[in-house]
Amino acid sequence: MTTEVASCAKKSRGRPKVFDRDVALDKAMTLFWQHGYEATSLADLVEATGAKAPTLYAEFVNKEGLFRAVLDRYISRFADKHEAQLFCEEKSVEDALRDYFSAVATCFTSKDTPAGCFMINTSATLAASSKEIAHTIKSRHAMQEKTLCEFLTQRQARGEIPADKCIGELAQFLSCILQGMSISAREGASLETLLQITDTTLRLWPQMLKI
Amino acid sequence: MTTEVASCAKKSRGRPKVFDRDVALDKAMTLFWQHGYEATSLADLVEATGAKAPTLYAEFVNKEGLFRAVLDRYISRFADKHEAQLFCEEKSVEDALRDYFSAVATCFTSKDTPAGCFMINTSATLAASSKEIAHTIKSRHAMQEKTLCEFLTQRQARGEIPADKCIGELAQFLSCILQGMSISAREGASLETLLQITDTTLRLWPQMLKI
Repeated sequence: MTTEVASCAKKSRGRPKVFDRDVALDKAMTLFWQHGYEATSLADLVEATGAKAPTLYAEFVNKEGLFRAVLDRYISRFADKHEAQLFCEEKSVEDALRDYFSAVATCFTSKDTPAGCFMINTSATLAASSKEIAHTIKSRHAMQEKTLCEFLTQRQARGEIPADKCIGELAQFLSCILQGMSISAREGASLETLLQITDTTLRLWPQMLKI
Repeated sequence: MTTEVASCAKKSRGRPKVFDRDVALDKAMTLFWQHGYEATSLADLVEATGAKAPTLYAEFVNKEGLFRAVLDRYISRFADKHEAQLFCEEKSVEDALRDYFSAVATCFTSKDTPAGCFMINTSATLAASSKEIAHTIKSRHAMQEKTLCEFLTQRQARGEIPADKCIGELAQFLSCILQGMSISAREGASLETLLQITDTTLRLWPQMLKI
């Protein structure tokens, strides 16, 4: 990241440093992901992004505005790509789920980003004063279960899941495992461990459809 | 809790207010559970416990000392009781696991304590400066998986689990589900939802032993 700022500064030699919104958002994302929303101060964000405080205020109004922009960027950089693994009609249900779980596991354990799930980490310890942000993160996080519901409903309509199977319960169970994987990752579990959990889940899948 | 302090004050009328260590620890526990270790300041702890700062310092030295005492109390008030559900030789493996999961689910969703797991919540956003506390919480939290391992190993020795089944993998998977339940609870899942997840897990149990 330092390199990007440096090269950006070089390009604009003699002119005011160009504010790179995406670079700033990525640096802010790392801070929020690591320390949570509450514990990340605007001063920390100013320091990490290398932007001047007035620039950040002009662009995002306040910490909440910056966080919302970071959340959008997180979704386009990560969540959308994970979900694309799921919504691929040529794949079997098992393959789509395995690819989705593997993509999420890879993200949780990637060395390029803090360990665990961005949304679980950021919402960990929200103060009473951050109700709106808490609501935003929770709604977005609940979307993971909704996305799984949507995917499973499509596959049920195609006859790949028994018609009498409760999709809500299935999605809830799969979502619980993904959340558990996030905590395991934060506590140091390796990608290998998470892929083993994924494998167990998929080997149980045929039985999940029967019980 | 206020009532306890009041009645304690009444009893010691005319003498200095008696410091009730357990009441103070329970109040500190609620704060740490709700806001995490990092975001809970000594000033917050002084206010919540109603104790004077010098009393807290004399008793616990510093925030870290107080947290360690809270952790011990959490273990005796909660963790030990949950584990007792597991280590009951008369129960079948399934019954022991169901009772253990149900006890944990009840704790995660109890109105008497903040939602979710004390250890997952407190360790959510630890600063680099809190390495020792991070280590303490992680070691203690890893004990959940170790406890499951110990239980499953005992049952394998009794022939209730196939001899060739990898206990480590089983414990890892069950532990992942418990961690996911903690996050679900923190995001508002009801006891009913967590018991449904428990039920699904137990209905998958025979298959877990086969795959």
